[in-house]
Amino acid sequence: MSRSLGAADVVEALAVLRASRPVVQCLTNVVVVSTTASALLAIGAVPAMVDVPGEAGPFAAEASATFVNLGTPRAERREAMLEAVQAAHAAGRPWVLDPVAVGALPVRTALAATLLRHRPTAIRGNASEILAAAGRGTGGRGVDAVDGVESALEAAIHLARAHGSTVAISGAVDIITDGVDVVRLGNGHPLLTRVTGGGCALGAVTAAFLAAGGDRLVATASATAVYTIAAELAAERAHGPGSFAVALIDALAAVNAAMIQARLRVV
Amino acid sequence: MSRSLGAADVVEALAVLRASRPVVQCLTNVVVVSTTASALLAIGAVPAMVDVPGEAGPFAAEASATFVNLGTPRAERREAMLEAVQAAHAAGRPWVLDPVAVGALPVRTALAATLLRHRPTAIRGNASEILAAAGRGTGGRGVDAVDGVESALEAAIHLARAHGSTVAISGAVDIITDGVDVVRLGNGHPLLTRVTGGGCALGAVTAAFLAAGGDRLVATASATAVYTIAAELAAERAHGPGSFAVALIDALAAVNAAMIQARLRVV
Amino acid sequence: MSRSLGAADVVEALAVLRASRPVVQCLTNVVVVSTTASALLAIGAVPAMVDVPGEAGPFAAEASATFVNLGTPRAERREAMLEAVQAAHAAGRPWVLDPVAVGALPVRTALAATLLRHRPTAIRGNASEILAAAGRGTGGRGVDAVDGVESALEAAIHLARAHGSTVAISGAVDIITDGVDVVRLGNGHPLLTRVTGGGCALGAVTAAFLAAGGDRLVATASATAVYTIAAELAAERAHGPGSFAVALIDALAAVNAAMIQARLRVV
Repeated sequence: MSRSLGAADVVEALAVLRASRPVVQCLTNVVVVSTTASALLAIGAVPAMVDVPGEAGPFAAEASATFVNLGTPRAERREAMLEAVQAAHAAGRPWVLDPVAVGALPVRTALAATLLRHRPTAIRGNASEILAAAGRGTGGRGVDAVDGVESALEAAIHLARAHGSTVAISGAVDIITDGVDVVRLGNGHPLLTRVTGGGCALGAVTAAFLAAGGDRLVATASATAVYTIAAELAAERAHGPGSFAVALIDALAAVNAAMIQARLRVV
Repeated sequence: MSRSLGAADVVEALAVLRASRPVVQCLTNVVVVSTTASALLAIGAVPAMVDVPGEAGPFAAEASATFVNLGTPRAERREAMLEAVQAAHAAGRPWVLDPVAVGALPVRTALAATLLRHRPTAIRGNASEILAAAGRGTGGRGVDAVDGVESALEAAIHLARAHGSTVAISGAVDIITDGVDVVRLGNGHPLLTRVTGGGCALGAVTAAFLAAGGDRLVATASATAVYTIAAELAAERAHGPGSFAVALIDALAAVNAAMIQARLRVV
Repeated sequence: MSRSLGAADVVEALAVLRASRPVVQCLTNVVVVSTTASALLAIGAVPAMVDVPGEAGPFAAEASATFVNLGTPRAERREAMLEAVQAAHAAGRPWVLDPVAVGALPVRTALAATLLRHRPTAIRGNASEILAAAGRGTGGRGVDAVDGVESALEAAIHLARAHGSTVAISGAVDIITDGVDVVRLGNGHPLLTRVTGGGCALGAVTAAFLAAGGDRLVATASATAVYTIAAELAAERAHGPGSFAVALIDALAAVNAAMIQARLRVV
């Protein structure tokens, strides 16, 4: 059922994140790895791009949270991903899956099926990716979303229940569900779809929010809320997608309680 | 022979690109992969960094165009490159080769010779790289151009005829040839040589222009024209190479018919 | 003992670097590789990210200097690193080691021990990394510095004497030693710790300064001085960590004798 998310919940989640400075391990694609590290630093987390076999597993057992993104899935990183999510799951640490272009491309689609068995704490993707991860679609055009967000809601609920995860579907309206309740958020800006790694960094930020503990639906939704509010702040300073990407990192560092209270749009 | 390129040709090529939103697969080096994705998004294309074996070939058969850049040529990506260009060639899809530092470094020099057999639609490099790709030189100093652009024209014509390609030589004056006609363009800015991936992103943008079809020499030359005009726009807002790189992405999104008509310099 | 470093020494070192345009080979982690190339271009060097086996060794024998950073240590790059430092050492070329997160992570800790046998010209890290490289600590929290800079001085002196290296410890005060003399520098800005690759790029810039020859302690300290002065200039234009990273690249290109003379703080 629809659930309300208050600005106070988001403000508290961000305050806890910044106070705890969670170490977020990332095993992510080469296109967005730098942007993702910058976004984590900006929001107040400590990025650790520990993604080689032999290091990924031991580190995941100690990290505050682990983020796995399936873009550019090199063989060595695939092995490290499996090591990391096994260790995170065994240690009871939160981990987040971003199933980039799953359904459209064979190597990562097989990998996603294997990783899902280790019960991600959260899954974040666009509608096409969520449909494909739930076995209901054929994936996107490149990494673009072809399907509408609402069309993926039933798949998201199924996915959440099957794996004990929260699921966040990114789109013009963002939908977050834990398989029971549903939160819809109306923040964000179209420029987020024009920059490299706009969605991928959100997955890592979601891991940072989950590291702080508390209600998982609130944590997952707070991550989307803070990130998309930062995107609105960034768009006001941007002259195009290049300056928007820079301003987004500035905004993730600057976003505060007053901005959240003034802007949060639960729809 | 020398050929004229009208602003209307460039304007039309850009309009067709933006209307068609081509999916450009990139197998490129880790230094520039993020910038390249950002440049493609900014110009209006859809980047897809699909570069692992088992995904690269199937994707190339469906992508609008494929871009192969030989920097940081890891073994796994080399295998994926071969898979991709074979599939692109078999499917009649355009593909573009950027022979980074070929001639100077052994692994990629051997790889370039293999890839050239699959008849790239276009080849883009600096004068040293074009000379080396044609078997006439010993390659550059790092990725710097040592040789002058005009000194590579005869090699470019040879290369174009041997492989059925258009060839673009980047330099203070850019030369584009299909082996018969030659276009010389005088746009651009020295800051393009001070930023990471300045040339590499142009190769990907060239693939986006070729995806739209039409005359290949016009498409290849239009890519260089739009990119170097965007560089001029960016330089007017820049305080140095850092802000220039950001402004270049903004400018690739902003460049329009009026700017092209006002600035195009066919020399 | 404590040694003075004059602004004139730093000004001269930078002038020689810019006049000679050294080619700096980098074998570095995927998170910072683009930023590192941009920093080298900005300061006046020529980056060459030549990091695959078969190319890394031959290139290191010819490059002006080689930089090895242990982040994201893929197997293929580890092999190339060994090839490169052997060739650099055999050819008498300077090479710099950045022992990212050594002590905390097993694969790179073993690798660091192997690489150290090839006598790096300089070693740059935070206090935790320098302690671990000297076998005195257990490494940092992620890539964060846990230990204070002064606590690592004795380890740095030991490391410098054992391997014939200069050692630079980055922190609020930077310490540089050749095992005999010690230079302390008070320039910099806290935003340097909030951006991706802030320290990693300094290692590459240090290689560029060492390429010019001259006194190694002066070269290593000059690199830190110029880099941290550029950080101060950048901070004056920044609205947060995103715009700071951009402004830092601009500032590395802009920093000049007058700025060095006005700002250098030997403490």
